[in-house]
Amino acid sequence: MTPSTLPPELADALHQRFGSRFSRGDSVRLQHGRDESPHGPLPPDAVVFAASTAEVAAAMTLCAAHGVPVIPYGVGSSVEGHVLAPHGGVSLDLSGMNRVLEIHAEDGDATVEAGVTRKQLNDALKGSGLFFPIDPGADATLGGMAATRASGTNAVRYGTMRDNVMATTAVLADGRIIRTGSRARKSSAGYDLTRLLVGSEGTLAIITELTVRLYPLPEAVSAAVCAFPSIDAAVRTSIQTIQLGVPVARIELVDALTITAINAYSKTSLAVAPTLFFEFHGSPASVEEQARTVQAIAGDQGGLDFAWATRPEDRSRLWQARHDAYFACLQLRPGCRCVSTDVCVPISRLADCIAATAKDIAQTELPVPILGHVGDGNFHLVIPILPDRPDEQEQAAWLRGRLVERALAMGGTCTGEHGVGLGKRQYLAAEHGAEAVAVMRSLKAALDPGNLLNPGKILPER
Amino acid sequence: MTPSTLPPELADALHQRFGSRFSRGDSVRLQHGRDESPHGPLPPDAVVFAASTAEVAAAMTLCAAHGVPVIPYGVGSSVEGHVLAPHGGVSLDLSGMNRVLEIHAEDGDATVEAGVTRKQLNDALKGSGLFFPIDPGADATLGGMAATRASGTNAVRYGTMRDNVMATTAVLADGRIIRTGSRARKSSAGYDLTRLLVGSEGTLAIITELTVRLYPLPEAVSAAVCAFPSIDAAVRTSIQTIQLGVPVARIELVDALTITAINAYSKTSLAVAPTLFFEFHGSPASVEEQARTVQAIAGDQGGLDFAWATRPEDRSRLWQARHDAYFACLQLRPGCRCVSTDVCVPISRLADCIAATAKDIAQTELPVPILGHVGDGNFHLVIPILPDRPDEQEQAAWLRGRLVERALAMGGTCTGEHGVGLGKRQYLAAEHGAEAVAVMRSLKAALDPGNLLNPGKILPER
Repeated sequence: MTPSTLPPELADALHQRFGSRFSRGDSVRLQHGRDESPHGPLPPDAVVFAASTAEVAAAMTLCAAHGVPVIPYGVGSSVEGHVLAPHGGVSLDLSGMNRVLEIHAEDGDATVEAGVTRKQLNDALKGSGLFFPIDPGADATLGGMAATRASGTNAVRYGTMRDNVMATTAVLADGRIIRTGSRARKSSAGYDLTRLLVGSEGTLAIITELTVRLYPLPEAVSAAVCAFPSIDAAVRTSIQTIQLGVPVARIELVDALTITAINAYSKTSLAVAPTLFFEFHGSPASVEEQARTVQAIAGDQGGLDFAWATRPEDRSRLWQARHDAYFACLQLRPGCRCVSTDVCVPISRLADCIAATAKDIAQTELPVPILGHVGDGNFHLVIPILPDRPDEQEQAAWLRGRLVERALAMGGTCTGEHGVGLGKRQYLAAEHGAEAVAVMRSLKAALDPGNLLNPGKILPER
Repeated sequence: MTPSTLPPELADALHQRFGSRFSRGDSVRLQHGRDESPHGPLPPDAVVFAASTAEVAAAMTLCAAHGVPVIPYGVGSSVEGHVLAPHGGVSLDLSGMNRVLEIHAEDGDATVEAGVTRKQLNDALKGSGLFFPIDPGADATLGGMAATRASGTNAVRYGTMRDNVMATTAVLADGRIIRTGSRARKSSAGYDLTRLLVGSEGTLAIITELTVRLYPLPEAVSAAVCAFPSIDAAVRTSIQTIQLGVPVARIELVDALTITAINAYSKTSLAVAPTLFFEFHGSPASVEEQARTVQAIAGDQGGLDFAWATRPEDRSRLWQARHDAYFACLQLRPGCRCVSTDVCVPISRLADCIAATAKDIAQTELPVPILGHVGDGNFHLVIPILPDRPDEQEQAAWLRGRLVERALAMGGTCTGEHGVGLGKRQYLAAEHGAEAVAVMRSLKAALDPGNLLNPGKILPER
């Protein structure tokens, strides 16, 4: 591990300001130099545990005076190396900024500090009749989810963080504090700074507080599971469901290999076949109607054993397999590390994209599950590789590269919800074109001329 | 009218490139120096009728070489002076760029040139089972609607242009062409340039093509109208409808004065009282359930004569009054011009905001209808003033100013859907704070250092 190389004056100033909440210890640095990706570790030179927007601004101002980078950190659940410190600097840990500041039940919004996690917010909402739907799997911080434009299983109904962050408080590269957006449901008042910060991965400003949209808890929820003779049949079922305007809350696809992994992990006996998991939200009559409509579509596509449930315990049982999928996949190869990657394509291309990807997978010796949020055209590969096998790392890189190139050729994006971080930088120009990337660079230069905010992320280094 | 003062070399070059599609005629200039606002006229020095993205880039490059401003123009339906030319320059008329380029029915998206209007797109979609929902009233161009982040009556269900523009092609201030976004439903790949351009009113780039989301035509539609004893009761009905998660497609409020105007204009005999208009989209069972739920809520709030209809001709009859509202208001004072203004507040503050505004109106001698998209907390004043009465202009300005200050004090925005243009610039700092406006200025400087793109709009001049 490289030694910490902070300018002594800065270290003194940070120590004076933050006391024991400023750390240069190896274990703390290492913990903040890792995330859920295969990148790194790349530890920062120090970690500051901030407790308020004012403290974030103070730390930023001090670091800026010494030209030292700052990397915002939540709970480290990012999957493309977003929180790593390739240029060293100070990791700004916001996990202690975890107060739910305001809940406006009538308006359906809540304002939280950036370190509040999605589960924490939903716990705070108990009894209000409202919930925050965005669910990327991990119990990520809302600040981190905003920074990576996260989404997950129910984006098909409720949108992504792009759609659900109404306002932010953020610290600029020079320590100034701005507020973006408002609690109004819509506005045409000037440039959309909120949407500029959402997805900017801490490279334009550090989000310290945010206001998010809440939704009424559905009066009724039902779940369904259905196996299909082919991935194509499952995807066609998804497309027709969306085209008919069924307001489905989740449609998740898992492939046969994933089912095998789940059966082994969860001791279930699901049919080993491509499978769709559904969730429906609405009135009791509406969720029943939705389930019946989807059952009919699935039947036309050869769907087998359509099972649906409305009681919470039965729904949980049906969905348990989907919830277990990631951990089940990890068990496919004991001792492996999983490289998780995602793309998103127009839904009409999804079946082709998955089929071609499955052929690629067959050319490797790796057991690679495919699972996805197919209502949006978004899917993941979970590539299990053994740490001591460089050839497997190469195979994983090859699969990832082929997948991204295919998604872009189909009019899609190199990442639907994971973000760019370190891992997808090389695809940015292929996706957006050199001129659009130049515009992104000019925005970065305008807001962070010293390249101090999470440097090395999103934009390829030159 | 001021004479055209274009540099002769530029005029020659534009004439050579565009022939008769380059005009310096007074009537053409005057037509392009006006919109539906009370501002202006402020005519440009010339008008270029562009036929393609390449032509827009060519005109922009020529104008940039001479430091001459460019103002994008669609059909002139903006309401805050967006298309006026306070600094002269060339109005770039995109109304001839009106080709629907691609319709992807399976994916639910369409790519159009910026001059395509919303009605034209919906005509092109006939037979596809899809529609484009955003409806600001006027048959505006989609490019203009994107530029002003327009929305309208059914944003409560389908969102605004912010939510429904997936991708753009745009020309930068130096003539470079960029593409932003993609046809993927979601992406975490870099800065959200699409959302940066949506709502930027032609000040950061000129949108020449855009890809928009489409929605399945609802299987069934029903409409309802209900009068209330007070605006407060009507707003409470809206809030409860949203809180219960009823997926209502439109909830429109009109006040008693507007009903008086409508009865006079449309020869109807509606009860003169605050009135809500509803529209429900879904399956036949779902729209019936929605209507019954809302009827129960309205009944609890003292709603009278809840009338609902599912047959198209009956729905049209119910909604005709709302559709006629603007023109009916114009007839309140023959010979008047209407100053239309809008704000948006958190819905919990809507009744208070409207009540206080009604008190202000009572202090003037003007008959000012209030109507709004109350599901979003967005409402309008339509202020009828006589052109030769400067005192009425002052009263209108006073009302507008009070309204905006009140909305901002309630956590709202100075404009929910009209945009900033010339008319709301002075409120930008009050809404966003000086630091956020400074960030907007730095974005403008980064993308348009010569201040050539629609100068004088959005950002207050210094």
